[in-house]
Amino acid sequence: FYLNVIVRMAHTGTHSQPVRACLLLVVVSVWVQQVDGVWPLPQQLDQSADRNSLSPQRFSFTYGRDSAAQTGCSVLDAAFKRYFSIIFPDFTKGSAMLTTLYSCFVVADNLSVSEGQAVLRSVTVWGALRGLESFSQLVYQDDYGSYFINKTEIVDFPRFAFRGLLLDTSRHYLPLHAILKTLDAMAYSKFNVFHWHIVDDPSFPYQSRTFPDLSNKGAFHPFTHVYTQSDVMRVIEHARMRGIRVIPEFDSPGHTQSWGKGQPNLLTPCYKGDVPSGSFGPVDPTVDTTYKFMESLLKEVKFVFPDSYVHLGGDEVSFACWQSNPNVRTFMEKMGFGKDFTKLESFYMERTSIVWQDVFDYHERIPQDTVLEIWKGETYQAELSRMTKAGHRVLLSAPWYINHISYGQDWRNSYAVQPQNFSGTEEQKKLVIGGEVAMWGEYVDATNLNPRLWPRACAAAERLWSDEEKTLNADLAFPRLEKFRCELLRRGIQAEPLFVGHCKHEYDGL
Amino acid sequence: FYLNVIVRMAHTGTHSQPVRACLLLVVVSVWVQQVDGVWPLPQQLDQSADRNSLSPQRFSFTYGRDSAAQTGCSVLDAAFKRYFSIIFPDFTKGSAMLTTLYSCFVVADNLSVSEGQAVLRSVTVWGALRGLESFSQLVYQDDYGSYFINKTEIVDFPRFAFRGLLLDTSRHYLPLHAILKTLDAMAYSKFNVFHWHIVDDPSFPYQSRTFPDLSNKGAFHPFTHVYTQSDVMRVIEHARMRGIRVIPEFDSPGHTQSWGKGQPNLLTPCYKGDVPSGSFGPVDPTVDTTYKFMESLLKEVKFVFPDSYVHLGGDEVSFACWQSNPNVRTFMEKMGFGKDFTKLESFYMERTSIVWQDVFDYHERIPQDTVLEIWKGETYQAELSRMTKAGHRVLLSAPWYINHISYGQDWRNSYAVQPQNFSGTEEQKKLVIGGEVAMWGEYVDATNLNPRLWPRACAAAERLWSDEEKTLNADLAFPRLEKFRCELLRRGIQAEPLFVGHCKHEYDGL
Repeated sequence: FYLNVIVRMAHTGTHSQPVRACLLLVVVSVWVQQVDGVWPLPQQLDQSADRNSLSPQRFSFTYGRDSAAQTGCSVLDAAFKRYFSIIFPDFTKGSAMLTTLYSCFVVADNLSVSEGQAVLRSVTVWGALRGLESFSQLVYQDDYGSYFINKTEIVDFPRFAFRGLLLDTSRHYLPLHAILKTLDAMAYSKFNVFHWHIVDDPSFPYQSRTFPDLSNKGAFHPFTHVYTQSDVMRVIEHARMRGIRVIPEFDSPGHTQSWGKGQPNLLTPCYKGDVPSGSFGPVDPTVDTTYKFMESLLKEVKFVFPDSYVHLGGDEVSFACWQSNPNVRTFMEKMGFGKDFTKLESFYMERTSIVWQDVFDYHERIPQDTVLEIWKGETYQAELSRMTKAGHRVLLSAPWYINHISYGQDWRNSYAVQPQNFSGTEEQKKLVIGGEVAMWGEYVDATNLNPRLWPRACAAAERLWSDEEKTLNADLAFPRLEKFRCELLRRGIQAEPLFVGHCKHEYDGL
Repeated sequence: FYLNVIVRMAHTGTHSQPVRACLLLVVVSVWVQQVDGVWPLPQQLDQSADRNSLSPQRFSFTYGRDSAAQTGCSVLDAAFKRYFSIIFPDFTKGSAMLTTLYSCFVVADNLSVSEGQAVLRSVTVWGALRGLESFSQLVYQDDYGSYFINKTEIVDFPRFAFRGLLLDTSRHYLPLHAILKTLDAMAYSKFNVFHWHIVDDPSFPYQSRTFPDLSNKGAFHPFTHVYTQSDVMRVIEHARMRGIRVIPEFDSPGHTQSWGKGQPNLLTPCYKGDVPSGSFGPVDPTVDTTYKFMESLLKEVKFVFPDSYVHLGGDEVSFACWQSNPNVRTFMEKMGFGKDFTKLESFYMERTSIVWQDVFDYHERIPQDTVLEIWKGETYQAELSRMTKAGHRVLLSAPWYINHISYGQDWRNSYAVQPQNFSGTEEQKKLVIGGEVAMWGEYVDATNLNPRLWPRACAAAERLWSDEEKTLNADLAFPRLEKFRCELLRRGIQAEPLFVGHCKHEYDGL
């Protein structure tokens, strides 16, 4: 079936009158620069210099007659409303006019803008969302405030199916609105997976129904620094409406110090000689209670987060504490693991899920359908070869740890990444299902999240969406990214500058 | 004469009642951590564990009877009001109570907090402002919201007289409120000079009365990206009330591309062979009209900015364009400069002012009272030796170019700077009058200014204020800086985190 969105644009003919009138007041260039920038770059984009006027009063999004989706399709109904506000911000402040303006008719993977009408065809509602985003980026204003769009033909689809962004809400708590804002900006860059690294050593902000003590005792504060069930639902719904999946990560058996505060006997007591030292190591994999607890917690998590994937971490497990503990050593002997603690970790990790690369690096048996995520920067190409040779699907994150800031235009490093440039067969290359931008939280909270994320994350967004051959040159991409960054400001995203200059709509109501 | 500020603190005796009541509801630690943190660290600080309750209702700032300043001293009257709001934020939202609460009496460089009363003595109103800041940092709240201050004796004075911060409003325009907010945060860290690098190559946002075309044609936008006379006055007054001088920089003869747009014939036309290339170089120092223009502009600038110093730049002058121009070459011959273009620059720069180090590095004669500012990072210690040997007062900025970000706790680099650690006599060391944190604008605008500045600039603030012997260890400073950063958040400054953790009052209303 097809979805089909028709955009009705009143064609106002010539517009020489207002221009002439304004010329009496100020002398400004009448010529409007053609906006040929869509970020990330569509697979095919043909634009002519012919431009059409857009009248906000006569503009509407409607479902096509032959469209499988019609009014009542909540994702698109809401998207029509949202994109009207994005395209015409001046017409939506304090006005209820909008709901009557658009009428929901048609829906139907291409976008065709011609005189008086634009038609968007898509096989899925999610594709229609991406098309609406592209459409919104094609509209521009001249110096007099009039809206225009050029005659345009776009055929588009993503290069990779998995285009993720990781936020870490354990090292610093991020308020709900910061997460929602990030989802907004993700949609503008066509990201489609929010990897929520929700808990870790420093704090456990997820308020569990089954184990409320985890956040009561493990969060930075039991009331102000937690995500309630309702918060989580809001995040998932906000993301869904924008075509974004939410994959939660409950990293274990390492990175679980905060879990131990609310769940006694979960972590391995470390020993100094023959006596417990008072500190704790990773989850204790030798006792049944651990597995019962993990089963209950994950049952809840899989219910609360409807996505088919849960990220189970498995990275950076320190073996020193396990080794110090006599019970663990006894268990190792019993299981015939000898002194190989990677076997113990493997024993613990055997699940179907996304896991960090460590699980592959150190373990013998991993189910074929486990997706592996590469995070170690130095050797990621070799890792891509090895993992795909073993038949695993992989996600590339190592070169996109953008919490690692540096002075200047470091987006160019992200842009230069070539995810399929490793030695392997064509079949192996296909096993790269996408990648993930990671914003780890050691030095990031609500004060600096947005300017660190945007527009730096946009570089990876284009690499994951667009044709690599058409987007190899960062210098060519630069002016388009500058424009897109100004567009992010106009939409209220606190995106930092790429270099010297200015935007018409600066941040913070200038 | 002496200024004397008395702080009346109602002593409410024991407060066991509310504590006991609350214990029925929640079990939280009753013990309040002693807050021995003042940033930057005072020269002498003695604190006891004895704490006094503070009642916002009974609290007032008053001038001492023997104080030379009394009610009507606008700087202190306003500071009393401001610091009441800072200390007791809950008592000032939407309430007019404040104006009746404090009565202005006394004023008198020490701060003594004891039971029921705190006395602040200072020789100048500016010292009193610094004392009020220290006082405000001594007050803390327990988990029940009650306010406390410990019995404390402070004797304090700054190590260096010049503690500056540079903002660049040419590479990106900074809206007025961003500048005002920066001044607020500067006062919290006891900075006392705002170095306003107001114009440069990319744009000329200063709206001149004498030469309006400079901003009309040289600003990014003639209305939205300019500083009007009234804007400039607001900045100066906002700064003055907080004990901060405003030193404007009109950098020339280089860094003047934007000037050329509104002032024809000011810049040197560059030549390609025998014909002008169409591009322009530095200010043309060979024609009288240049000096007439500069005289008029600087006359206005010195009137608008009351500070006794104007920074005249003088850095990074490219000689290639001068060399290409036949008129300049003729002038050089006439003046007997030969082929030494540094002599031409010297000819241009002979003024009493602060200038960048280049003017010293390349020129023969500089007036003894010109203050030199060091910006080149690699060689700053050698430069300190040479400049002070020549008898010049110097400002150190090179190691504090904090626009150069890097991953992690880079404030430690700023903190490790020892401005007087260079080979030279004691007399030479005294010629180091201070330093300046520089936030150049290539990659900075209103979206990321605050989290890049704060708390990173605080490291230099302490180095410039405090006893170096007592503040050598960054690890010891760390928890105090973390507390101060939380205090900045509480005061509405978007200061980024130093490391994993949280604040009671997070940014943005958490």
